Amino acid sequence: MTTRQMKLAAFCAAGPVSGHHGGWRYPGAVRDFTQAATYLETARLLEQGCFDLMFIADILAIPNRLDGSMDSQLRYGALGAMRLDPLIVLAMLAGVTRNLGLAATISTSYAEPFQLARQVASLDHLSAGRAAWNIVTSFQDAEARNFSPRDQLSHEARYDRADEFMDVVCKLWNSWADGAMTLDPAAPLFADPASVHPIDHHGAYFDVAGPMNVPRPPQGRPIFIQAGASERGRDFAAKWTDIVFVTHASLESGIAFYKDMKRRAASFGRDPAELVILPGIAPVMGETTEIATARKTLLDSLADPQAGLSTLAYHLDIDLAQFPQDEVLPAMDVPGVQGHYKEVAELTQKQGLSLAEVGRRYGSGSGRFVVGTADAIADRMEEWFTKGAADGFMIQPPYLQGGIELPVRLLVPELQKRGLFRSAYEGPMLRDQLGLPRPKGP
Amino acid sequence: MTTRQMKLAAFCAAGPVSGHHGGWRYPGAVRDFTQAATYLETARLLEQGCFDLMFIADILAIPNRLDGSMDSQLRYGALGAMRLDPLIVLAMLAGVTRNLGLAATISTSYAEPFQLARQVASLDHLSAGRAAWNIVTSFQDAEARNFSPRDQLSHEARYDRADEFMDVVCKLWNSWADGAMTLDPAAPLFADPASVHPIDHHGAYFDVAGPMNVPRPPQGRPIFIQAGASERGRDFAAKWTDIVFVTHASLESGIAFYKDMKRRAASFGRDPAELVILPGIAPVMGETTEIATARKTLLDSLADPQAGLSTLAYHLDIDLAQFPQDEVLPAMDVPGVQGHYKEVAELTQKQGLSLAEVGRRYGSGSGRFVVGTADAIADRMEEWFTKGAADGFMIQPPYLQGGIELPVRLLVPELQKRGLFRSAYEGPMLRDQLGLPRPKGP
Repeated sequence: MTTRQMKLAAFCAAGPVSGHHGGWRYPGAVRDFTQAATYLETARLLEQGCFDLMFIADILAIPNRLDGSMDSQLRYGALGAMRLDPLIVLAMLAGVTRNLGLAATISTSYAEPFQLARQVASLDHLSAGRAAWNIVTSFQDAEARNFSPRDQLSHEARYDRADEFMDVVCKLWNSWADGAMTLDPAAPLFADPASVHPIDHHGAYFDVAGPMNVPRPPQGRPIFIQAGASERGRDFAAKWTDIVFVTHASLESGIAFYKDMKRRAASFGRDPAELVILPGIAPVMGETTEIATARKTLLDSLADPQAGLSTLAYHLDIDLAQFPQDEVLPAMDVPGVQGHYKEVAELTQKQGLSLAEVGRRYGSGSGRFVVGTADAIADRMEEWFTKGAADGFMIQPPYLQGGIELPVRLLVPELQKRGLFRSAYEGPMLRDQLGLPRPKGP
Repeated sequence: MTTRQMKLAAFCAAGPVSGHHGGWRYPGAVRDFTQAATYLETARLLEQGCFDLMFIADILAIPNRLDGSMDSQLRYGALGAMRLDPLIVLAMLAGVTRNLGLAATISTSYAEPFQLARQVASLDHLSAGRAAWNIVTSFQDAEARNFSPRDQLSHEARYDRADEFMDVVCKLWNSWADGAMTLDPAAPLFADPASVHPIDHHGAYFDVAGPMNVPRPPQGRPIFIQAGASERGRDFAAKWTDIVFVTHASLESGIAFYKDMKRRAASFGRDPAELVILPGIAPVMGETTEIATARKTLLDSLADPQAGLSTLAYHLDIDLAQFPQDEVLPAMDVPGVQGHYKEVAELTQKQGLSLAEVGRRYGSGSGRFVVGTADAIADRMEEWFTKGAADGFMIQPPYLQGGIELPVRLLVPELQKRGLFRSAYEGPMLRDQLGLPRPKGP
């Protein structure tokens, strides 16, 4: 009998702040996020640690929701100060890695289905089956203003568009049957015309004739990832995706979410085992508890309150400069991400923290960081894993490369010792690591 | 005194047919165009040969202008049977090459300026200054139908849109001043807010706020390439681009075009030396003339008339199945590429060839191939280079990897012996190879 094992992903960004707003200032941290070497080194470490995948988050604008200005973001190297295009970074990594999954965040709100399907399929071919797509919908005004004018959609309409988007790209990925590219020079038959078909999609948001001019990807389609927390977001994830990631305040909410998502997957006629749930975990590690604690203290001292506030303002889509920084933030409805507001409401209303203090904590990852030795962090992960809150974890490094290096050198061996994590890759494709079957073709 | 030397580019595709419709069927030819190894090997060879750049052409649909069907394209592995996304291929190559320029074809007709600017800037950063963009406008119905509905633009409107597109992306690339990313952890100052500015572009086709969330690219902006032959296309190229490539029927037309383009560049206030003119040359090489001739005979026997006709129909944007295949094509106005029609009109009207024969020849590269030894091909290139028709050449390989390998092993050494081509790269960036100054920043 095979023991159930964890899946591990690394939550990265092609810019500053993967996990902590003070991270780029950490002594000796890698901080030139325009350089290939930064990403090559991260990928090399992750592959050494048998990680399932490297995930790259994204933002399509420099946030300016704090006083209408980008200044705090740029000055403090906050969440959106700069971001290379995730697909370009991951395509570069495809050439120099062998087993690591490569997950790009791309918004359905501004992408063209044909182009997205083709770029991601190209990545899946060139990486021999290691492409993943983190599906997001966009609502931020700063992002909308970087694209040709179109109406900002409501939350529901964004998901309607995303649903149709998924339908179109899946049809495109299936527009060539498996084996359609026969490459027979003698016949000659480069590709069998009987196995390649237009999709003739005509919907509310898109008209796409197809077929794609790329054969069916090695994985059938790329692995889908999503992080929706709303009702509609959960249903979207349960219907479409292979991996859901999420951040929880407690084990209890983690278990409730896990159960809810598996139930939803079943309600869409899916095998719940094929929906992989990866809670986020942000470890600050050390060889001893004292080293880890001191490291966290140092990191936190490097995160400016304004950095955190400017990112929080972006997440909530509210100009937080309009409120007194030394007072408690009043309760309110926010147009932005509900999950982030809940995190903050906890700190403000229950703990009575000032807005500036909330900014400092938010920039330091609020309650998300787990500080300790590999042993302590493995305990926590094992608890979540065995108590039904997780199929694995999305690890958020507080800085590079230490935030990757310490988990690979200390945590992964501890998990392996406990039989909770693989010691070698399970196959050539990302699907193989995740234990997910390849979708049947047309 | 430095002797003037040639620039060399390789005209490739991320699919079949870089130069010859029979190429993928050539014995021993590399023909799996979905595999990373195919492109890695081409790039490795080109870098060994000190080539300036690897150019990847593109098509955004499988052509279906012959009898409304994709069959001939797919069956015979013709021009548009399959194409991976050029940027994804080139990004992969960025990680495993050091000096080779990486040129992606991207259409201004379907791209979003913000996304294109960001993806190409990301490639320029990750390759440390080796990105180039071949700017095309699209007119094919098959391509239009793969993208969300928008009006097909007239030839003039396509160029109006392209002009505004260039304006927007150049503003985005300049939205960070050089050195804006200070990366000072002590201050702290990740980036200087005073050096990063919105672009607030509002035009007829685009509204883009900016700034880009990527620092100014190493080359200031990527190298621009264009192949317009029309009046408007020539002006566009003379105004915006660094490299023009073009296919000529004769040395005389090559000289006339060269003069015309340099004059146009000057009329836009540019130094004509900074517009690099690269005529296409499609060599079929052999160690002796006899080997080269026999190789060409073999190649031509592998190109089916229907393959060439389906590509010609796509280029002319005319359904050629409506005409008798055994008769001469009547003279007509074609909505498609004028240059390709001129090529064909020559064969049909002057030489009286049947349409099927034209298809066979078109698929075999019509008159573009030069057959012979390295010495003979070097003679031809030297003549064009010294007589004022070329600053270098865009070499079209008839098949992989031989079509790349033979020029690198035989032709390049011959050109080097004559002092016509470099023996080592001239600097880290593509601009350095091309001898082009870096554009001043904002």
